[in-house]
Amino acid sequence: MTTPYSIAYTILQQCAQLGSYSEESECLTRRFATPPMRQVNAAVTQWMQEAGMSVRQDAIGNIIGRYEADHADAKTFLLGSHLDSVRDAGKYDGPLGVLTAIACVRLLHERQQRLPFAIEVFGFADEEGLRYHVPYLGSQAVAGVLAPHHLDQPDVDGITMREAIRTFGGDPDTLATCVRDKSDLLGYCEVHIEQGPVLEKSDIPVGVVTAIIGQRRMNVTFTGEAGHAGTVPMNLRHDALTAASIFIVLVEQKAQQHAGLVATIGQISVYPGASNVIPGKVTLSLDVRHADDDQLEQVCQQFEQMAREMAKKRQVAVTWQQVQQHGSIRCDHHLLDLLQRAIEQQGQRVIALPSGAGHDAAIMNHLTPMAMLFVRCYKGISHNPLESVKVEDVAVALSVLERFLLSLAQEQRTA
Amino acid sequence: MTTPYSIAYTILQQCAQLGSYSEESECLTRRFATPPMRQVNAAVTQWMQEAGMSVRQDAIGNIIGRYEADHADAKTFLLGSHLDSVRDAGKYDGPLGVLTAIACVRLLHERQQRLPFAIEVFGFADEEGLRYHVPYLGSQAVAGVLAPHHLDQPDVDGITMREAIRTFGGDPDTLATCVRDKSDLLGYCEVHIEQGPVLEKSDIPVGVVTAIIGQRRMNVTFTGEAGHAGTVPMNLRHDALTAASIFIVLVEQKAQQHAGLVATIGQISVYPGASNVIPGKVTLSLDVRHADDDQLEQVCQQFEQMAREMAKKRQVAVTWQQVQQHGSIRCDHHLLDLLQRAIEQQGQRVIALPSGAGHDAAIMNHLTPMAMLFVRCYKGISHNPLESVKVEDVAVALSVLERFLLSLAQEQRTA
Repeated sequence: MTTPYSIAYTILQQCAQLGSYSEESECLTRRFATPPMRQVNAAVTQWMQEAGMSVRQDAIGNIIGRYEADHADAKTFLLGSHLDSVRDAGKYDGPLGVLTAIACVRLLHERQQRLPFAIEVFGFADEEGLRYHVPYLGSQAVAGVLAPHHLDQPDVDGITMREAIRTFGGDPDTLATCVRDKSDLLGYCEVHIEQGPVLEKSDIPVGVVTAIIGQRRMNVTFTGEAGHAGTVPMNLRHDALTAASIFIVLVEQKAQQHAGLVATIGQISVYPGASNVIPGKVTLSLDVRHADDDQLEQVCQQFEQMAREMAKKRQVAVTWQQVQQHGSIRCDHHLLDLLQRAIEQQGQRVIALPSGAGHDAAIMNHLTPMAMLFVRCYKGISHNPLESVKVEDVAVALSVLERFLLSLAQEQRTA
Repeated sequence: MTTPYSIAYTILQQCAQLGSYSEESECLTRRFATPPMRQVNAAVTQWMQEAGMSVRQDAIGNIIGRYEADHADAKTFLLGSHLDSVRDAGKYDGPLGVLTAIACVRLLHERQQRLPFAIEVFGFADEEGLRYHVPYLGSQAVAGVLAPHHLDQPDVDGITMREAIRTFGGDPDTLATCVRDKSDLLGYCEVHIEQGPVLEKSDIPVGVVTAIIGQRRMNVTFTGEAGHAGTVPMNLRHDALTAASIFIVLVEQKAQQHAGLVATIGQISVYPGASNVIPGKVTLSLDVRHADDDQLEQVCQQFEQMAREMAKKRQVAVTWQQVQQHGSIRCDHHLLDLLQRAIEQQGQRVIALPSGAGHDAAIMNHLTPMAMLFVRCYKGISHNPLESVKVEDVAVALSVLERFLLSLAQEQRTA
């Protein structure tokens, strides 16, 4: 007998299968428009078709399945998440949302049930931004907010985004065709692992997201003076790496003292980068997040001031470049209500929490009201091969999503 | 008229020419056995031939010019330095010594003067170790101390040293033919820029080297736990990069307090290295030098203890691997005397100083007595495109080297 548990088990098997499609043999790394993304789209296409959907790949490489409504000229509700990954990733960040959505459509299909709206499931081609350091390429294309100049950016091998899209079978010149017509849409709902410890600590399988918290991403460069590691006395050095290290330590101290703040230096590059040369230049990434937009801005200003004061003392130059910024984005109140009711009907306690991670839902918010359902994950670990979810929790998420769609259908019928 | 000044001017022009042979268009980077090293060896071959030398390239890619003695079965005195570079290098570190030696032989050749010993000028194929992270490949091969297992090491592109040597026209299977017979040798003398500020501060063009100070090179790895930059609260993190940063700051503080000590972190790599992922692993290079071997060892032990204590507090693991180590190496007393007298005869004050940098001379010491002559350089800057020497100082170095060889010749004749 097909039960939510058995379907959830299949979803996890599918996650494992997609997790085997990687650019690196030792770990899961799947950047935008790479050969393993082709394998992923092929597998997802098959599963979408088995769930009764027609499937297309759009000009940027998103894979989209469509399940028709019970009548012509009906509107469309969107589900989905992303299919790319970070480097040395886990198997659930992204794919779980796509596969749960497909499984939910499959339930309708197997009952030969049509809703008063069409459903489209999006498997976004890029959310993590690993290849071009621009996240959300897939959903940005769909929302019509992708800046065309990114097409000329090269990846680490010198391949421009334009070339990568073309090689993948897309068309960089017709990205406008990816844009979804707003007037046709009812909303967007994304299932995603929490990537944090809140649900596990509360012992609850799923939670509704209140907002996606604000984020700023900076590139900070310290420029000192390169020199010979054996001959320049310590007191005559202008070492860019020791300056950067002091900054990293200060950022951590400050972030630890500020409730709700997270600040991360995830990348650092040293120039010239030889063991016997004093570093002349260091560039690092700084990612800062807080649910309160004003506090976020204030803290970032303080970080910049800290960097400048410290660098001045050490006679090192600083450049501070903000490369990404978005404020907190609230989830749609009505969709959130429907999700909460679905959770209650499922017999679960309702917990509402903000998302510390960015999601495609934040981009889709440009287009249509959005909501998110979080699934508990092991120890809150994510962006790490230890990422893990329980099959029972996925079964709950599947049932909640199904109830959510059915109650939305009922609303539409009585409207 | 040919004057030491005009010859020195030519030497600087030749340094500039070699400085144009680079792997990178924007800066001077010349790793072992790369195409620009082929260009360098071709140019040096021509200049050696014009100075009356027969020229050969040995199995590892060193270029060697030989100027015969005034009689058969004479012994040989060696001159030389290296022709590879660090990344984004200056033009004089290495090539100045090779070209001054060739110019000195050319003076003899133009006067048709033969000495009671042959002279060989070595242009070493690798001293900086940039490509394989093993320095002194050229002089190690000549001294017969190159460990064969290095041949299997890959460079950053996966090309093994064995393949690189073969592609360059050498023969990795006959490196034993590079080894110079000790019994035939009288000594080795290397002219090199100081790469430090002592001569400039003393307002003296050249100085003799007393010793090459001891050095240890370590690879230190901190392993924490990768995680999502937006969702893991600060107090639950085990960030490998913040741990590494604290270590870098502690090393600097400690080194500043210890007279004569230099300690440098020149390389750092972060895994996984994405802006939105908390660093799970960081590896850094640590280069520590001191003229006193005991103090050097003590300090390195203290650094390791500091790393372990700090890491324990932060629940991060440390691995500490010493990858290179040599004690202080004294220059030959007699050759040093001859150099000092040559400087006095040249009408200059004599200053004797230790070398904070490692040099091929330290390796050649395995084979034969060695000495070094330092040339003042601008602000002591080296391993940097700002590296600069005065033509007047190079003229002094040339004259001192010539006097040195002539007084050695006189000694040999009267012996």
